[in-house]
Amino acid sequence: MSEMDIFFHPKSIAIIGASDSVKFGYATTKYLLDSKFKTFPVNIKKQEIHGHKAYKSIKDIPEEIDLVIILVGNEFVLQTVKDCIKKGVKGIIIESAGFAETDVEKYIKLQEEIERIAKESKVRIIGPNCIGVTDFNNQFTTADMSFDQATIGKVAVIAQSGVLGNIFIDWATDNGIGFSKTITIGNKVDVDEVDLLKYLNQDPETQVITLYLEGTKRGKELFETFKNMEKPVIVLKNGKSDIGSKAVNSHTGSMAGNNKVYDAVIKQNPRIFRVNNFYEMFNVAHVFASQPFPTGKNVAIITGSGSLGALACDEIEEQGLTLAKLTENTISLIKSVIPNWVSIRGTIDLGPSIFETFIPTIEALFQDENVDCILYIFSVPRWPLQMMGSMATNWAKQQFDIIKKLTQKFNKPCVCVCFGSGWTFDFLRKAESSSNLEIKIPIMSRIKYALKAFKMMYEFGKIKKSG
Amino acid sequence: MSEMDIFFHPKSIAIIGASDSVKFGYATTKYLLDSKFKTFPVNIKKQEIHGHKAYKSIKDIPEEIDLVIILVGNEFVLQTVKDCIKKGVKGIIIESAGFAETDVEKYIKLQEEIERIAKESKVRIIGPNCIGVTDFNNQFTTADMSFDQATIGKVAVIAQSGVLGNIFIDWATDNGIGFSKTITIGNKVDVDEVDLLKYLNQDPETQVITLYLEGTKRGKELFETFKNMEKPVIVLKNGKSDIGSKAVNSHTGSMAGNNKVYDAVIKQNPRIFRVNNFYEMFNVAHVFASQPFPTGKNVAIITGSGSLGALACDEIEEQGLTLAKLTENTISLIKSVIPNWVSIRGTIDLGPSIFETFIPTIEALFQDENVDCILYIFSVPRWPLQMMGSMATNWAKQQFDIIKKLTQKFNKPCVCVCFGSGWTFDFLRKAESSSNLEIKIPIMSRIKYALKAFKMMYEFGKIKKSG
Repeated sequence: MSEMDIFFHPKSIAIIGASDSVKFGYATTKYLLDSKFKTFPVNIKKQEIHGHKAYKSIKDIPEEIDLVIILVGNEFVLQTVKDCIKKGVKGIIIESAGFAETDVEKYIKLQEEIERIAKESKVRIIGPNCIGVTDFNNQFTTADMSFDQATIGKVAVIAQSGVLGNIFIDWATDNGIGFSKTITIGNKVDVDEVDLLKYLNQDPETQVITLYLEGTKRGKELFETFKNMEKPVIVLKNGKSDIGSKAVNSHTGSMAGNNKVYDAVIKQNPRIFRVNNFYEMFNVAHVFASQPFPTGKNVAIITGSGSLGALACDEIEEQGLTLAKLTENTISLIKSVIPNWVSIRGTIDLGPSIFETFIPTIEALFQDENVDCILYIFSVPRWPLQMMGSMATNWAKQQFDIIKKLTQKFNKPCVCVCFGSGWTFDFLRKAESSSNLEIKIPIMSRIKYALKAFKMMYEFGKIKKSG
Repeated sequence: MSEMDIFFHPKSIAIIGASDSVKFGYATTKYLLDSKFKTFPVNIKKQEIHGHKAYKSIKDIPEEIDLVIILVGNEFVLQTVKDCIKKGVKGIIIESAGFAETDVEKYIKLQEEIERIAKESKVRIIGPNCIGVTDFNNQFTTADMSFDQATIGKVAVIAQSGVLGNIFIDWATDNGIGFSKTITIGNKVDVDEVDLLKYLNQDPETQVITLYLEGTKRGKELFETFKNMEKPVIVLKNGKSDIGSKAVNSHTGSMAGNNKVYDAVIKQNPRIFRVNNFYEMFNVAHVFASQPFPTGKNVAIITGSGSLGALACDEIEEQGLTLAKLTENTISLIKSVIPNWVSIRGTIDLGPSIFETFIPTIEALFQDENVDCILYIFSVPRWPLQMMGSMATNWAKQQFDIIKKLTQKFNKPCVCVCFGSGWTFDFLRKAESSSNLEIKIPIMSRIKYALKAFKMMYEFGKIKKSG
């Protein structure tokens, strides 16, 4: 058992600064008090919170406490931590902000003092200036989020920013991306990315790790940990520019460090991949978590639009991939089903014939030995789809069912990139998730992310094979 | 009056290949037959289409025809064009595909023959391989789209791709972006980007022009036209790479041309701006169409998240902008309303205090003489917003009302970048559009696009002022 387990499987919890007025921490408090997790609210001014007896101090709680969530104002945090240590708690999550990130001498000192006493005790601390953790499997959370609006999956998140604990989960859930655990680590007085990378590398619920970093205090250990990872890690690093680096300092009090050093270290480690933004990070992770690894760099493109196909070709070159050169047999197979006005030079641009020609075409592509990955660009306007009604719905369901079967049969990855309205995305996502097959086909809005994922997975797959 | 007017204000229309079965062109046919536009269906096999008498040939229609929409198979197009010219029509839109883009000798020749006879007659032709035009003001369309799912605005589109005639309109409408006219030009046997740039430069309904180009046959005239534009033109050029350039050829039969030449020409013209993808193109155009021009490069950032603020700082440097250095007065004003844990070094990171502190803070930023543009990063998780219910809704409405008033009063642009679920975007968009003030505040999903727009508008504003 790891020390980190206490943050995800606490037997008892206290919330210091628990409140029944709507503000930061309210959703967490209400959720935990009503949940299967044994939770004690602590509030110096209240007798009762959401119908549960409130305690004046953690010291008054008559039972052992595993984990404490601290929501009180910055000036009360140090004393609270001291009380927790006296009580013998195992883990503390300090969500309160107002420490080193303010650049105010008094609050920097406060943080240093917490750091010092954490080191002298056995307690492990996450934060301050964060929203803590979520475990999507056992439904434990400290992050003001709702499990009704989240999906279980194989992607884990370690992030030096609260937005990755709920706001990007909101976004990702809409996009069919599921998670195992998220941990936001804020100013990192104790638990940091090194502890958590090691922990998640062993976590059976996690297959891919995403890491958002503003800076590290343990560069050497971090780079050593990168070397020893077995799972893929998708890294986003902020603060590349001068002013960005200053902004990082005023966010979590981190020194951004040298951008080029990060780049060099990441390039040396074939299991660690650097991305450029949050959307890219999650989309790439989703493909890693859902698709088989390609054994080559040849991408076949099936598209409803020639211009989007051309754009994908630009991107294939940009990513160092290759446009698959189809065999004569595949070309004959496709030619036998398409009308004469369909262009199959390079990308397979089915245009409006897609409703009749998609299924035999994608079958032909999957079986082609020169094809390693398949990019499917969906571009049908909303209005005709709506006019087609259930005809369109049934077609879309059948389409995803076949893609899933082919993905499993040929062990080749396939990603669908959709263009159009929110309605169109919903239409496709419903069709995708209506299939009984367990495998998921990512549906995303950017060609770049799909191709980047193929490239990274190809690189990762090579290492995996070679042992 | 311009020759191009016939494509947007035809007095009578014939649809050749009109059909009442659901396929490409069905929506257009049904819409026009039921509309105020006098429309005659032509179908060799049918007596009646959607309750309207169908004609065997355009020659059989007893009235004059201004504009013809051709939907028939590629092999029937040449004869149809000849018939149209005999009939004396003024404009033709050939939507049928299967010409030069197939790289099949026979179909290349077919296109050349259409081009030749177009040149010898007075008729103007758009296409082939396109979906024609939409006029959002008078609600004329040939593009299989629905005006119930579109918004009138000041952005025009010229595009060598059908996806920009409806699919991206679907997307843009969801994103609050409105249009004046869209024209998809396909393989361009006659009407091309040069004709349309000149036309839209004079169009009172258009304020900003977006141009998606795969290649040009009239490089010299195009570059000359760029020089003479008075309105801003946002250009996306595909086919940068070798394989992308080949793909462009198989899409609209265009030669992609030298990417560096385009770059150089665009850089010489301060009213022409190059972008990297469709989303960027429309988001930037939306800011141009809705916001005042900034008179300087100093951007103030008000954010709910420090990490997103830091990301914006990286991007400010990337775009050659400056993070605004607030006056002492502004800092005091903001300090008087924020709690001690709010960090206002660099970006103004209000965190969860945003509900109490946003309005006085943004007022302070607008009045600051060192601030030229305002970026507002909205990052509140969905669940707390839903729990707050009407409290949150009312706050959001009030917030946009105040932003709009400040934008008008101080004549400074403001863009809101939102992170989170589709629900959150809807929540904000409803609040934005509920205000009675006519000005719109763009709500987008990428910091990069907002800052790129500020930079381009600053450059454009300088030219405008100087001449």
